[in-house]
Amino acid sequence: MIDLRSDTVTKPTYAMRQAMAVAEVGDDVYREDQTVIELEETAAEILGKEAGLFVTSGTQGNQVAILTHTKRGQEVIVEADSHVFYYEVGAMAALAGLQTRPIAGMHGMMPLDEIAKAIRPENIHFPQTGLICLENTHNRSGGTILPLSYMQSVKELAVQHHLPVHLDGARLFNAVAATGISAAAYAATADSIQICLSKGLGAPIGSVLVGSRTFIEQARKWRKMLGGGMRQAGVIAAPGLIALTQMRDRLVEDHVRAKHLAKGLANIRGITVDVERVETNIVIADVSDSGLSTEEFLTVLEQCGVLATAFGGSLIRFVTHLDVTDDQIDDAIAAVAFATRMR
Amino acid sequence: MIDLRSDTVTKPTYAMRQAMAVAEVGDDVYREDQTVIELEETAAEILGKEAGLFVTSGTQGNQVAILTHTKRGQEVIVEADSHVFYYEVGAMAALAGLQTRPIAGMHGMMPLDEIAKAIRPENIHFPQTGLICLENTHNRSGGTILPLSYMQSVKELAVQHHLPVHLDGARLFNAVAATGISAAAYAATADSIQICLSKGLGAPIGSVLVGSRTFIEQARKWRKMLGGGMRQAGVIAAPGLIALTQMRDRLVEDHVRAKHLAKGLANIRGITVDVERVETNIVIADVSDSGLSTEEFLTVLEQCGVLATAFGGSLIRFVTHLDVTDDQIDDAIAAVAFATRMR
Amino acid sequence: MIDLRSDTVTKPTYAMRQAMAVAEVGDDVYREDQTVIELEETAAEILGKEAGLFVTSGTQGNQVAILTHTKRGQEVIVEADSHVFYYEVGAMAALAGLQTRPIAGMHGMMPLDEIAKAIRPENIHFPQTGLICLENTHNRSGGTILPLSYMQSVKELAVQHHLPVHLDGARLFNAVAATGISAAAYAATADSIQICLSKGLGAPIGSVLVGSRTFIEQARKWRKMLGGGMRQAGVIAAPGLIALTQMRDRLVEDHVRAKHLAKGLANIRGITVDVERVETNIVIADVSDSGLSTEEFLTVLEQCGVLATAFGGSLIRFVTHLDVTDDQIDDAIAAVAFATRMR
Amino acid sequence: MIDLRSDTVTKPTYAMRQAMAVAEVGDDVYREDQTVIELEETAAEILGKEAGLFVTSGTQGNQVAILTHTKRGQEVIVEADSHVFYYEVGAMAALAGLQTRPIAGMHGMMPLDEIAKAIRPENIHFPQTGLICLENTHNRSGGTILPLSYMQSVKELAVQHHLPVHLDGARLFNAVAATGISAAAYAATADSIQICLSKGLGAPIGSVLVGSRTFIEQARKWRKMLGGGMRQAGVIAAPGLIALTQMRDRLVEDHVRAKHLAKGLANIRGITVDVERVETNIVIADVSDSGLSTEEFLTVLEQCGVLATAFGGSLIRFVTHLDVTDDQIDDAIAAVAFATRMR
Repeated sequence: MIDLRSDTVTKPTYAMRQAMAVAEVGDDVYREDQTVIELEETAAEILGKEAGLFVTSGTQGNQVAILTHTKRGQEVIVEADSHVFYYEVGAMAALAGLQTRPIAGMHGMMPLDEIAKAIRPENIHFPQTGLICLENTHNRSGGTILPLSYMQSVKELAVQHHLPVHLDGARLFNAVAATGISAAAYAATADSIQICLSKGLGAPIGSVLVGSRTFIEQARKWRKMLGGGMRQAGVIAAPGLIALTQMRDRLVEDHVRAKHLAKGLANIRGITVDVERVETNIVIADVSDSGLSTEEFLTVLEQCGVLATAFGGSLIRFVTHLDVTDDQIDDAIAAVAFATRMR
Repeated sequence: MIDLRSDTVTKPTYAMRQAMAVAEVGDDVYREDQTVIELEETAAEILGKEAGLFVTSGTQGNQVAILTHTKRGQEVIVEADSHVFYYEVGAMAALAGLQTRPIAGMHGMMPLDEIAKAIRPENIHFPQTGLICLENTHNRSGGTILPLSYMQSVKELAVQHHLPVHLDGARLFNAVAATGISAAAYAATADSIQICLSKGLGAPIGSVLVGSRTFIEQARKWRKMLGGGMRQAGVIAAPGLIALTQMRDRLVEDHVRAKHLAKGLANIRGITVDVERVETNIVIADVSDSGLSTEEFLTVLEQCGVLATAFGGSLIRFVTHLDVTDDQIDDAIAAVAFATRMR
Repeated sequence: MIDLRSDTVTKPTYAMRQAMAVAEVGDDVYREDQTVIELEETAAEILGKEAGLFVTSGTQGNQVAILTHTKRGQEVIVEADSHVFYYEVGAMAALAGLQTRPIAGMHGMMPLDEIAKAIRPENIHFPQTGLICLENTHNRSGGTILPLSYMQSVKELAVQHHLPVHLDGARLFNAVAATGISAAAYAATADSIQICLSKGLGAPIGSVLVGSRTFIEQARKWRKMLGGGMRQAGVIAAPGLIALTQMRDRLVEDHVRAKHLAKGLANIRGITVDVERVETNIVIADVSDSGLSTEEFLTVLEQCGVLATAFGGSLIRFVTHLDVTDDQIDDAIAAVAFATRMR
Repeated sequence: MIDLRSDTVTKPTYAMRQAMAVAEVGDDVYREDQTVIELEETAAEILGKEAGLFVTSGTQGNQVAILTHTKRGQEVIVEADSHVFYYEVGAMAALAGLQTRPIAGMHGMMPLDEIAKAIRPENIHFPQTGLICLENTHNRSGGTILPLSYMQSVKELAVQHHLPVHLDGARLFNAVAATGISAAAYAATADSIQICLSKGLGAPIGSVLVGSRTFIEQARKWRKMLGGGMRQAGVIAAPGLIALTQMRDRLVEDHVRAKHLAKGLANIRGITVDVERVETNIVIADVSDSGLSTEEFLTVLEQCGVLATAFGGSLIRFVTHLDVTDDQIDDAIAAVAFATRMR
């Protein structure tokens, strides 16, 4: 199968498997796992922050950050299609007692004046605004990149209102690979950043949350409460280290393939793709003119050996990653073309 | 002072004060206060529901209803400018662990297809949708009325998805007075309804939540948790009963005055009012063309003996009520005209 | 009926009813109800604190205080039979996200060394201790009085650990009436105190929470979230003021009657009462030697025109109050004696 | 160092490391990781339940179970020294909105009549009892075993009151190894069971929660909310499978060594150990007669190359496990004897 459902499906490389087998480990609840410590310090250094915390998933990294930044009863400004709001099971309200204040964005960017208007003044009827969340690259917009200047503007606004900013950087290194801007430059516009090791970087499990030393110390306790405190976690930190140190540069290959895929799909009658908006490794195709429903379309693709994801309405998402070759992209384009002729 | 800030500022009438002084009372935690029971039964009857629950405020009625309808971790569909989302201190998340899913409405009406799209399908990443909330009349839209047919359509959609509907009917009787449609007809489109006694109806304190008998029994316990269980509550239920049984018809007078005010304001250069949208007792005026800021405008008005409310941006809200006379409306118009000449 | 179930059943006096009818009122959400303000200031002054907040019940006062003192995820030390833990519907966990750490007390007093042991040191596995709660007089121990010296010792321990103390003083004025120690002296050992107006003091509705000005400002917002913000609340603050200023001294009468009742019951074969422990207005009788179950016993009493409350196991609680006369106490003793002969 | 702090410090065996390196993996959020599925099914089969769920820690397994069994606002009966109450950061209240009702146990067993008394009858003041939690073996009691008959009695009581039972079986296989009673027999007395792979069984990371198929389906979503949804989790499930299938029998060795250690310590003047109570792999020693504080004692031990854990007051905990040899036990005894001569 050509699996374009998500970059989460990548399998660990041989080097990663070897790293697991020989990793130096200790009990990380006691802070004695040197591999975990090395991973956390490496992530912090790359992102220009004081400290890092290894977590089991992007969701856990985001929610631990949110729990650490806020007090119960506050309101959090989130983009209306952001992962923290859309895909995290309502955790922000359920676990942290926070009201979500979603703002519709364009390519993942909430308009600055909308953010400004959403920040609550003091009033006995209003929850206090407690946090602004950004996501870069932005998944549901098709892996679009938030420009550094935009992030800086949001940070300035946040500083004016004494608000922290959390960056869901699950795919931040895709933005880095595409723009050449350093991860630390992006991270400088946020107080905390969560990066995923198990998406384009290819590690089997895990994310890292980074921020100030004080922030991470508090976050460690919230992680424990969520059950994220692990023992000999070095066995999964070891492949994470390889992902973080050796796999970032190769993300450009995924972007080239995604662009190739986008162009191929855009040439197929019945398929609409905004090729310009394919900035990283995600391609969103609209199949409404194909005469097939999304479900029908995906079924035909699967019969042709191609997996993709329903993405709401008539949209289908394709994601390129480590385990996809150039030939497979061509095959995927052919499969889509075949599907459009099924009606 | 001519107080047009809100219909909550009304003072109890002489009859209400007398009723308090002679009210039959008992310990309502033991369900022994006959006046409270009579109020609850009267409200239930008027709204065509099985049972009622006296609460200390509209916020408490709404939040008790929400706590009763939902389970922690669910998502609630709310209009983006609704009271439950905008003005209740984030209670839905803080107290009930619910994620809010706001949808921008037109005159308080969320588009039906937007509601349909917002109802979550089963997916491990998604919170379950647990409730739809409506507000009629809709305060932040300027007291606009949700048409009965609209409410019926929302109810149908909700039924299809096995979702309850809660109606924030803090000013439902304004809609009833304006349209002639019965309160029970509106209430038939919702599973629970909260009505306020202390707004246009003039009671000093309180609201009533109504619904099925089972629902109200459960709601009673959530009310207790919020500290809403009172003892000889008959002393405030008594004026509430007068409000509920004798003051509904007079709301049309407030509407006539609001319309008169709106027309008067619309004739003033520098003031923008959508007279057509003044459907009940609320008038929203835009002072952006007056050359004064909202704060400056309100200060001048106050010096002229008129109180109104800043309503976000360049908007000012005026609300007519029991304690406002025709002459005062004319005086208020004159004060606004005076203010526009201050620049 | 001779109603000895609780001192909450008292009906407002004639003076209270008159006060309601003529009370000066305003919209208290805008802080314009002078009667409420006077009540809050009077309570603060009597208790030696900077500010007060009128709430609708003791439960609301306690929970607002707890929400204000704490952060989500903390642990609160409570006596195992205290009202905040036993009778408030689990609100501390449900609304505030706080783990309760109950310690069994003797006559309402948790042993100091048990409190000290329960205060959590820093450890990644432990919730942070956030608050200590006391209750004086202590309802489930039979209205027993926490000695001032005990409260001072708890306060010292709390200060050492930088912990606030909340006093549930629903019946604090009973302790004051019994000991002659001033309310302010007791209150000096706590950071916040909740007093009930609707128990022995006879008001129909309400409690007051007092503390520092900053604390009360924050508490006001949590009260709003619980739906405790009321409009013309002066109509119930007015009888509350009478309760607070004119009814405290008469509590000694309730104590004399409770002692008389206790002695009378102690003389009845089949009834066990610890007369020494009847320190205020509550009498706990054990009916296990009567040969009747608690339910049977209460049924016979009711047939004799006497109401009391099942208090767990074989215990029955009698509470004296404003609406109980000397003769009724004698009748109640006779009814109990009658009941013991029913087997 | 001889590390007797906990059985969590065990390092993965060579076989486990090899298993990681060759594990068949897939994306477990899509339910495509065959190794995880095999682990979950194996655990379910051993425990006689329908389904299992791999989680990252015992805390996560317990909290996911608790979230799944309960509704916000309920009360949970827990032993006063149980892990879920004592060591899980107050998660039950913070995440799930549940009031904890701790009951002091004897060797980890809450008296049945105390449990019965703690189950709340219906009363508007009371939270509803929602769950009973047990822990077997019981860590803070020194690894004591809850007898099967006791667990059956608790289950009967729970069934009578329509309450589910959750078993924290982090060290259940120690009870199995010590008694010869099957894990399934113990598990039959509970609705859900959490077992740890990373304690005595030696896996680097993880626990499994088991229960009915419906229960586990719901639990999977709560796990996702806590961030416990992992991708190629087979890499840690693989050593978990070895732990679960090959390491259970060897736990008796840990018990023999613990008994040997206990006897050795009991012979040292200044050290008190209840040898009879050393039923599994945990030894609790009281050093109060040694003339040293716990901290001093642990420091001397560390200088002698032995690590143990302060366990509250004058207690020290020693835990035997996979990575401890007979000789090391003798050395540890000698180190303790040395320490007692330091005063």
